[in-house]
Amino acid sequence: MSYIIGIDLGGTNMVAALAHENGTIIARDRAETMVDSGFTDVVRRMAELVQRLVDGAGISLRQVEGIGMGVPGYLDMTGGIVHFSPNFVGWTEVPLVDEFRKHMPLPVYIVNDVNSHALGEYRFGAGRGAEYIAVLALGTGVGGGLILDGRLYSGSTEGGGELGHIIVDPDGPRCECGCYGCLEAFAKAQAITDRAALKLQQGKRSIIPEMVDGDIRSITPAVVAQAAEAGDETAIEVWNEVGMYVGIAAAGLIQALSPQVIIIGGGIARAGRFLIDPIRRTVEARALLIPASTCRLELSPLGDDAGLLGAISLVIEKR
Amino acid sequence: MSYIIGIDLGGTNMVAALAHENGTIIARDRAETMVDSGFTDVVRRMAELVQRLVDGAGISLRQVEGIGMGVPGYLDMTGGIVHFSPNFVGWTEVPLVDEFRKHMPLPVYIVNDVNSHALGEYRFGAGRGAEYIAVLALGTGVGGGLILDGRLYSGSTEGGGELGHIIVDPDGPRCECGCYGCLEAFAKAQAITDRAALKLQQGKRSIIPEMVDGDIRSITPAVVAQAAEAGDETAIEVWNEVGMYVGIAAAGLIQALSPQVIIIGGGIARAGRFLIDPIRRTVEARALLIPASTCRLELSPLGDDAGLLGAISLVIEKR
Repeated sequence: MSYIIGIDLGGTNMVAALAHENGTIIARDRAETMVDSGFTDVVRRMAELVQRLVDGAGISLRQVEGIGMGVPGYLDMTGGIVHFSPNFVGWTEVPLVDEFRKHMPLPVYIVNDVNSHALGEYRFGAGRGAEYIAVLALGTGVGGGLILDGRLYSGSTEGGGELGHIIVDPDGPRCECGCYGCLEAFAKAQAITDRAALKLQQGKRSIIPEMVDGDIRSITPAVVAQAAEAGDETAIEVWNEVGMYVGIAAAGLIQALSPQVIIIGGGIARAGRFLIDPIRRTVEARALLIPASTCRLELSPLGDDAGLLGAISLVIEKR
Repeated sequence: MSYIIGIDLGGTNMVAALAHENGTIIARDRAETMVDSGFTDVVRRMAELVQRLVDGAGISLRQVEGIGMGVPGYLDMTGGIVHFSPNFVGWTEVPLVDEFRKHMPLPVYIVNDVNSHALGEYRFGAGRGAEYIAVLALGTGVGGGLILDGRLYSGSTEGGGELGHIIVDPDGPRCECGCYGCLEAFAKAQAITDRAALKLQQGKRSIIPEMVDGDIRSITPAVVAQAAEAGDETAIEVWNEVGMYVGIAAAGLIQALSPQVIIIGGGIARAGRFLIDPIRRTVEARALLIPASTCRLELSPLGDDAGLLGAISLVIEKR
């Protein structure tokens, strides 16, 4: 019996899972990342977390087939290097795989966290059975991942699949990348809460102010989703507008790439039908030459496990 | 010594070329398509054209390695079937390859005409040496083709690469596909002449009315390009605006797919620097996360031969 370990490395926490060779998670554990303590220290903590997981399950490291890591940032997958990461200040051209293997001489693979999500959907999620998949992960930013012809697509720079930076409205707001009107500028968490706050400032009636005790700055996408659930028209309007922009990007992806499924994930996807329904309506109305009917639009069924399952998939992919 | 034949089948004319096995064209000939005479008749005329070309060169059909055909429309490349074609009314699910092989039992391959263009650029044009290429062909419509990882990309429906129908402005004009704000609605020939005509109607000063003897309906993209060449500010403004929209699509393609080169072809690309300069400026300003510097933007160097060279490439690809 052999096992796989997946690690989802975030700026705040790292989560690790032990899985059967078929990918079924049998144990998980987490630790603080403490990124300020420096690169080698974070890597040491990752190795300790893996050791704890293995010890807890009563197995030996020798039974571990490989370790997959989902890491935010721009990576050299082949060389095992993190070129840079927005979440880990100071990690510039760091040899993550080599450093980790000093602690545990196992096969170790790294992948960008959103690409990891795409791999997870391909093998375990809404992309099972499909060979052409796009994932849009809506959270603090908007990430993207592509599976084309059954393989993770990374393009000529290994940076392909930055679907959050497709321009959906050339006159749109400035994005953190410096451009205007990227999907991310409309669909990241801050953009959603800003849109809700603006509507309140414009005097729209809503239960949201009551929900946040009048502190508009403390609105979150979860609050806007709860308000929509309670029937709040202003909150529903926010989701309809955000969904329209995601739908514009999705319709463009269908014309350009003709995927079989586009999967919406990330924390914001918890808004559920309030988010996916307007995306679907927009795609139905706007994907015509290659029609909407050729492509499913789904909420990610993997939830918080998407990154872990993707990291585990990475080891399976390498077989 | 073996030879290849390429055919560029259009609604008005069919052009055929005889090439050396390395793809160098050594003879070409053309005939009227006369599409109204029916499918089998058009195919017979294609076979006659090939026979004439072969006879004229003093070679035998047995020396022909294969025949590649670029065909407008939505095709089943594997089955050799034209599902439908906007240029050939009545061609619904026609078995083009099987019908042709009744006349000449040679290896025959078909490919969508814009995908053919992409193959031509990959092997003989601005895409030589690159493995990730996008082609935008601007003409009566706006077509697109993708080479990803060294292979023609067609997606799950064999319809992928419809880059002309990426939405570049959700509030844009209606496109023939039924959607609003597709790249095609801004960058096809009619959109360019309409944009010029509108500026004239708004009273902008220009030499264009004089060039068309006051008949605004007879403006063509070539006229707008000539006016720009003569320094006409209104014509230059038209190209700047059109180039901006093409640049929005190109910047999105760079973020999503990270190609090494995006090639602008089709008849409208004859506008040269008036078209490519504003495309480049827009991409420089708008491709940031994956920067513009990672991707060349080039006018097609193949001109009218793009389709023929692509059809020839198709035979080479099959080796």
